[in-house]
Amino acid sequence: MGRLTKQKSRNLTKEILRPIRISGSNVKILDQNALPWRERWVTIRTAEQLISAVRNMQIRGAPALGIAGCTAIAISARQAEEKDLKPALFKRKLESVASKIRKTRPTAVNLSWGIMQAMNEVENYGKFNSALVNRLFTLAAKIADDDLKRNLAIAGSGARLLPRDASVLTYCNAGALATGGYGTALGVIRRAWKTGNLSHVWVSETRPRFQGARLTAWELKHDGIPFTIITDNMAAMLMSEGKVDAVLAGADRITANGDTANKIGTYSLAVLANFHRIPFYVAAPASTFDFKMRNGKSIPIEQRGRAEVLAPAGRLITRKDMPVMNPAFDITPHKLITAIITECGVIKQPDASRLKTLKRRMMENKL
Amino acid sequence: MGRLTKQKSRNLTKEILRPIRISGSNVKILDQNALPWRERWVTIRTAEQLISAVRNMQIRGAPALGIAGCTAIAISARQAEEKDLKPALFKRKLESVASKIRKTRPTAVNLSWGIMQAMNEVENYGKFNSALVNRLFTLAAKIADDDLKRNLAIAGSGARLLPRDASVLTYCNAGALATGGYGTALGVIRRAWKTGNLSHVWVSETRPRFQGARLTAWELKHDGIPFTIITDNMAAMLMSEGKVDAVLAGADRITANGDTANKIGTYSLAVLANFHRIPFYVAAPASTFDFKMRNGKSIPIEQRGRAEVLAPAGRLITRKDMPVMNPAFDITPHKLITAIITECGVIKQPDASRLKTLKRRMMENKL
Repeated sequence: MGRLTKQKSRNLTKEILRPIRISGSNVKILDQNALPWRERWVTIRTAEQLISAVRNMQIRGAPALGIAGCTAIAISARQAEEKDLKPALFKRKLESVASKIRKTRPTAVNLSWGIMQAMNEVENYGKFNSALVNRLFTLAAKIADDDLKRNLAIAGSGARLLPRDASVLTYCNAGALATGGYGTALGVIRRAWKTGNLSHVWVSETRPRFQGARLTAWELKHDGIPFTIITDNMAAMLMSEGKVDAVLAGADRITANGDTANKIGTYSLAVLANFHRIPFYVAAPASTFDFKMRNGKSIPIEQRGRAEVLAPAGRLITRKDMPVMNPAFDITPHKLITAIITECGVIKQPDASRLKTLKRRMMENKL
Repeated sequence: MGRLTKQKSRNLTKEILRPIRISGSNVKILDQNALPWRERWVTIRTAEQLISAVRNMQIRGAPALGIAGCTAIAISARQAEEKDLKPALFKRKLESVASKIRKTRPTAVNLSWGIMQAMNEVENYGKFNSALVNRLFTLAAKIADDDLKRNLAIAGSGARLLPRDASVLTYCNAGALATGGYGTALGVIRRAWKTGNLSHVWVSETRPRFQGARLTAWELKHDGIPFTIITDNMAAMLMSEGKVDAVLAGADRITANGDTANKIGTYSLAVLANFHRIPFYVAAPASTFDFKMRNGKSIPIEQRGRAEVLAPAGRLITRKDMPVMNPAFDITPHKLITAIITECGVIKQPDASRLKTLKRRMMENKL
């Protein structure tokens, strides 16, 4: 937890936006497709509803998907318990939901990680009753709380990397909305704004779904942090004019050598930052690391539908019979990453050997 | 004209789309804001109408703006002649229109160039009568025809630069629509498709106005050339996967050292191509060169309105009170340009000395 006392963290927690609210067995999510226009909270009653919310990206962002994965299992356990299913059927129901939700978003490893946390709890507890249901909801809430705490630690480490009054470029949304709260890359920005290490944020709109222009801009406006939205293709020009001191991005999966999957366009920014000698930082908690995967080449890249490219905001930008592609993520090789900022410290020039050390530290770390 | 005979060029001319039709003193333009949905031809009767069409980008593209600049003066001469204006007033009317249309799009030098061609004609002829009007319309038509011929020459030189079955990435629209016909970068693509030097085109959508997704895609579809639309932030990933053999762009202004202004995002592609060791070509006719300007730092960059970023296709992608910027162009330094393809030959590794030679060749060149 670095220099944050528990009390301080508790106070921060109160005022922090959290996109998934778990209270007992009640689950509400903030519909991210309604932002930035409306703060629409949706009550999730069934696992199917949650799966659909993940698929439609009403809830999104790697760490938030971790919470969603565990929550889906908790909700399906409650459904199984209400139907009074026998242990074998009960278990099969959970496994079926786990398999279904895992397939919705294959790139972010946090989703699988959250599901695994829940399935381990199921395995360990061994009984299929209302107590299991309670345990699973408690676990989901704990994962969300843990994630928030991790983000606060990431924010502290990350903010110290920036020079005074830095102008930072961020991509997609690695904010409160993408996490248990506070945000990873946007958490660093929030903290740096408070410590005087930040003066302005360039928000890259993030085609095709505009998470930057919609979600990151909404969060920054809410917090009163100065920012300007740019189209993704303006970043290079700003860099060449000396107007970007650092690039800050989140991650959907980081492999054992430091290669990182993140929203399509992240790799482009990493190359541009490298050319202009601007530091490129990735901020991510432990749940984003996939130490079993050797490098980024094996990361599955989710391909999404044509409509996101052809009809942003629901209106066609060209004829709908035009051929398009829509990979949702790209891979940034570790060599282009100046540092990975985690709750267990900052890994400069990440590579396989430095990530081995990080892995050990993460396994020892009890938040 | 390289290896194209006059007969061949005449045959090609017939089947070629030309966005500005000048016949006698009748002027029609293809409304590029209606594409790719409708082929809407608009009759232009007044200089004010043409100025507004340029400002709204119903007609756009650097070489086409050159034609529009001359045409605006021709039309205003006809208006002055119809009103029977005295020589002094007649001339003042032309100068006022010249000044107004020049301000609409400050970056593309072709616009000023086209106006200058017309004003030189006015100066040389010295009388203000119906014969001047005819001369100006004849000049405008000749500029359009010349531009088409130059593009055919560019196409021939450019196509030979590509390997067999090349996969090429192009940006914005440097096609028939942006020129007197056939296109600059897209002219090279058209020719390469015929000669077997091209197998597929990546069409970068080109935020904020989507000229790639709308106009280039429409031209390629019309010609049956295989293509895929991508969002601008996907280009880097494709390059890293070895799927791009060359990048081909047009230009709005090329200074004496080879620095090039083109649609915002072009510089980004040049840096990405450089990193991936992919050739980056700029295709442009003589009217695009501004030998009086020493380097790209002095090129005026047009700033356009907020709505283009916030509401592509007329629908808001985020809240309309969000801060945005919208520079319409960026500058690619000559060091990132593999070659500039002109109607007077290919200038590899362009710099001030090589462009001096080109200037001489262009002045000798009689098309």
